[in-house]
Amino acid sequence: MTETRAGHEGRGAPAGRRSGPGRRPGSPDTRATILAAARGLFAERGFAGTTVRAVAGDAGVDAALVHHYFGTKADLFVAAMEVRVDPRTAVAPVIEGGVDGAGERLVRVLLSVWDDEESRLPLLTLFRGVGDPHGQRLLRDGLMRMVLGPVGSGLGLDQPDRRMALVASQLFGMVAMRYLLVVEPLASMPAEQLVATYAPIIQHYLDAPLP
Amino acid sequence: MTETRAGHEGRGAPAGRRSGPGRRPGSPDTRATILAAARGLFAERGFAGTTVRAVAGDAGVDAALVHHYFGTKADLFVAAMEVRVDPRTAVAPVIEGGVDGAGERLVRVLLSVWDDEESRLPLLTLFRGVGDPHGQRLLRDGLMRMVLGPVGSGLGLDQPDRRMALVASQLFGMVAMRYLLVVEPLASMPAEQLVATYAPIIQHYLDAPLP
Repeated sequence: MTETRAGHEGRGAPAGRRSGPGRRPGSPDTRATILAAARGLFAERGFAGTTVRAVAGDAGVDAALVHHYFGTKADLFVAAMEVRVDPRTAVAPVIEGGVDGAGERLVRVLLSVWDDEESRLPLLTLFRGVGDPHGQRLLRDGLMRMVLGPVGSGLGLDQPDRRMALVASQLFGMVAMRYLLVVEPLASMPAEQLVATYAPIIQHYLDAPLP
Repeated sequence: MTETRAGHEGRGAPAGRRSGPGRRPGSPDTRATILAAARGLFAERGFAGTTVRAVAGDAGVDAALVHHYFGTKADLFVAAMEVRVDPRTAVAPVIEGGVDGAGERLVRVLLSVWDDEESRLPLLTLFRGVGDPHGQRLLRDGLMRMVLGPVGSGLGLDQPDRRMALVASQLFGMVAMRYLLVVEPLASMPAEQLVATYAPIIQHYLDAPLP
């Protein structure tokens, strides 16, 4: 009860110090424990509100070990946020079907990923970082480029950047209302009704003449 | 140089302690100084990353004085985020013109407020709180209810909640892309081109048959 964890006060602990009394040895289990702690804290407190020290504390390891395995807090965030669904696999059917009906397929794929609780948690955490410069960069360069970039070029759109930015603006807002702000009736609406509502709009952004 | 500000270590400092050596007396100037410090810190670090103590530090006053004037951190946030534009005034012309063309007027009003740097800063800070439960409540109950609720009822829409949630989903996403994530080409696009792009979509959500 009165024992103090080693390194608790030690901001200046040497970075190379990795093993010692009371610290777990490096192992796949330790990595998984750290990642689980990071996911929990990032989800609860967001990127800015989470420290590597707090993650280490929750995982029962020294902060230096977290840095050793995962690098900076931003690196840890990327590792922890690794979504279960590979975005390239998920959007493949959207692209393969061609432009016709691509709007509907895209909305349906997106909702199937977000409606699944296991894939939603890390994505939600990623979206919670939207207020933070790191989180913004991750969202813009990660999700936007990994998911929407390939769709735009895969479908062979004219003005792909402009069209996919419009698509992103609607899908981002839909996700924000349904999952982040939990605005009714969108939050409780059946996925197929949302597909029917948004598919024509996304299709419009994909292939209608733009002003 | 070696002087320590009173109360620096004092988490349990009595709440009523308001004046003393080294603290500024309460005055309109002090309020303004605190609000300016709060705006700066909330904008820089978001809601979760900002403490009342840090705001007090930046303003050069005791944290108890901040609590005395503004209450909790959430109360301070609301006070600091007070937007320059009264949303009721801003949306009045959208409502007065009736449903016809309301989509276009709404997009134009929104962009005129957001493109103005003075009104953008507090709004941006409000949006940065989207990852945080407090910020979410403020966004949902504040902006959504203050701005979009009156439009839905003022225009006499059928299914106003559903239609305004759809409107919100597109406008929120547009704002996120243009001002928060700064996604090109939306970030640099002339406002009138955005109006022409989004007005038909917003109008659709306002008055088209919905699935």
